[in-house]
Amino acid sequence: MTLRTLPESARTSPERLWASLQRAGEIGQTADGGVRRLALTAEDAAMRELFASWSEEAGCSVSVDGVGNLFARREGASAELAPVLVGSHLDTQISAGRFDGALGVLAGLELLRTLAEFEVELRRPVEVVSWTNEEGARFSPPMMGSGVFAGELDLEEVLATRDEGGISARQALESIGCAAGGPVGGREIDSYWELHIEQGPELERDGIALGIPSAAYPARAFRISVSGETAHSGPTPMRLRRNALVGAAQVILAVDLVASAHAPDAKSTSTRIEAWPNAPGIVPGEVTVSADMRHPDGDVLATMVGEVHRHLQATERATGLEIEVEDAYRFGGLEFDESCMKLIEAVAEEQSVAHRRMWSQAGHDAYRLAGYCPTAMLMCPCKRGISHNPAEDVDLADVTPAVDVLLHAVARRAAALPQ
Amino acid sequence: MTLRTLPESARTSPERLWASLQRAGEIGQTADGGVRRLALTAEDAAMRELFASWSEEAGCSVSVDGVGNLFARREGASAELAPVLVGSHLDTQISAGRFDGALGVLAGLELLRTLAEFEVELRRPVEVVSWTNEEGARFSPPMMGSGVFAGELDLEEVLATRDEGGISARQALESIGCAAGGPVGGREIDSYWELHIEQGPELERDGIALGIPSAAYPARAFRISVSGETAHSGPTPMRLRRNALVGAAQVILAVDLVASAHAPDAKSTSTRIEAWPNAPGIVPGEVTVSADMRHPDGDVLATMVGEVHRHLQATERATGLEIEVEDAYRFGGLEFDESCMKLIEAVAEEQSVAHRRMWSQAGHDAYRLAGYCPTAMLMCPCKRGISHNPAEDVDLADVTPAVDVLLHAVARRAAALPQ
Repeated sequence: MTLRTLPESARTSPERLWASLQRAGEIGQTADGGVRRLALTAEDAAMRELFASWSEEAGCSVSVDGVGNLFARREGASAELAPVLVGSHLDTQISAGRFDGALGVLAGLELLRTLAEFEVELRRPVEVVSWTNEEGARFSPPMMGSGVFAGELDLEEVLATRDEGGISARQALESIGCAAGGPVGGREIDSYWELHIEQGPELERDGIALGIPSAAYPARAFRISVSGETAHSGPTPMRLRRNALVGAAQVILAVDLVASAHAPDAKSTSTRIEAWPNAPGIVPGEVTVSADMRHPDGDVLATMVGEVHRHLQATERATGLEIEVEDAYRFGGLEFDESCMKLIEAVAEEQSVAHRRMWSQAGHDAYRLAGYCPTAMLMCPCKRGISHNPAEDVDLADVTPAVDVLLHAVARRAAALPQ
Repeated sequence: MTLRTLPESARTSPERLWASLQRAGEIGQTADGGVRRLALTAEDAAMRELFASWSEEAGCSVSVDGVGNLFARREGASAELAPVLVGSHLDTQISAGRFDGALGVLAGLELLRTLAEFEVELRRPVEVVSWTNEEGARFSPPMMGSGVFAGELDLEEVLATRDEGGISARQALESIGCAAGGPVGGREIDSYWELHIEQGPELERDGIALGIPSAAYPARAFRISVSGETAHSGPTPMRLRRNALVGAAQVILAVDLVASAHAPDAKSTSTRIEAWPNAPGIVPGEVTVSADMRHPDGDVLATMVGEVHRHLQATERATGLEIEVEDAYRFGGLEFDESCMKLIEAVAEEQSVAHRRMWSQAGHDAYRLAGYCPTAMLMCPCKRGISHNPAEDVDLADVTPAVDVLLHAVARRAAALPQ
């Protein structure tokens, strides 16, 4: 078998990648310059359509699986060999930037375009995937499509999940014409590679172009329900009240303070609150706070969770409120593949790209894949560490080194003889 | 002019009143046994229709004004004399009981029925009114219809007010066929009388059948906005965050604590919270808390407001969040009419009804009318002081004395020679 491998001097086109990122950022663009492209909405459908047409122009075949994961495939010399998979997600949070997720998918597209440009023929197929509903902003849990693909989530349960408007994931898939997708997962993948903005400030601060996550923060998310009793906010004596919102305030502060107690590595955040009846003149009767807690050391994370629990029990005793803590989801607490990381490091050395190993702190589709096949991530700097915010931004010059390392690491992996 | 006055022995029919209250409680009844009958909804329309037909059966003419206030009128011997007005409201909070408001209107109806039964002819007309949107649960501010009637609110501004779904009060009035109502207010009213459940625990506790509010707690409502910055709840270092929900928790606790500092008369409540983007994985960027604060002494109330302000300024300095306090509405801080109260007391003495003067602590339509004409309120016990809650309840035997005092006070006032 004769391969046509990628020349060592080959590089991606930063301008082409940038143009694609800008074009993608227009789909779901908001007045504040951010992006709102929730999973399986019309905006997501338009973005998928664009990615599919770009991929076909680069000589790839496009397919969708039964949970809406979208794959672009460049064939290899040996069709029977498992593909090298590159990807991330094209959905966004409700008020997001242009790079979280989109960079990983469009860097994969840029990789496919570069392989086509150099008329490369590798041993393995190379696929680029956009996973469905990574953010969890519309359907819960997050990293949904990759979770089903990797066998961590049940397809039927996921399809039955409903958004706040009562629309199921199944209905949403139907509404964008993705209901007839193929089997989800259940096929061999050689390895998975995901490039992502750091979403933190460290790489920019230290002038490191490439972060290589060696492990992922364990993260646990909770729904904390506080039950009191509605009452009139006027005549009801203060001592007879059980104001669930006052209890929720204690929850929010407890969740925040536990991070201080385990600084600087602990992260602990109340992200969402729902109060009922949430009306002027009424003492709130029921409030739910969504919180997530993270720490690189799983034992410390367990300690943090225990401390918050104890604080909430004390609040219960002091207030007469009932507080229940329910697990929402958990992720992380895993290590990435050493051989993949070593390959990234070798390529980075050859290309004189400053790199270092680091922790991954956000949730990523790569976490789902890490239990399914050898998996690695590459992180590039983003400005001031801002993400999940319309002001999220990158300098193209800061992104390019990681994209070129990804290109050569994947090309080399796909050219290598099966071991 | 020969009048046919009400015999001193005349009494209302508790059973008839109870049957009407029960029937009314079925309109908008919720699964938990409570009532949800928001202003100008289909449920409100059905309730208005029922009240109108009952009033017509009692020999009254029915009319609606331009803000939807609904009047049932029993003519007096002198049509040119200003009417004695009795009323309250038929709208409810989103999760309410059967008596808040409805008791005052249906006690008025029972009064009309009793006058008809005894074929009484009084000097003045007697009118019973149901004011539009007293609760403020759908449109803001509360006590809306009575506010326009009394000239405290501007009709056009009120009609332009929108609910959370973007429907204006004008559109809502049209949707229930009340858009062509007559002029609002601008006519002489002899006096206004409102019977209401106490919504507090004092009358029941002390075995007093009739409370006569001599003055109303000054109440001030605020919208407190906390502005931070959205960020990723994972990688963003805690020290770089400005979590608006953590600031809102401080707001809620400050609002709660100021009541303790001025116990037992102070009431201070965070009733409503709205967070943005309110999504898992994102540090909240904007949160608004609605709060109301009350104290019988206006100077103490001003002190309380100042203390909360100072606490919030300290929170701003400590957190880097921006906190803005905006006035939402204010009511109360008024005294009821001495001659009306004395008439109530005289009737109560004659009927051997235990009574005492007290503070009114909730908001009531009577507050709007108090600046317009001589106004008084009557309060009866409710169980455990519970209100704005499906469990709101009364014993009929606890309500009847106040209703009979209302009947005779109003009949005597309407029979009296103009002074």
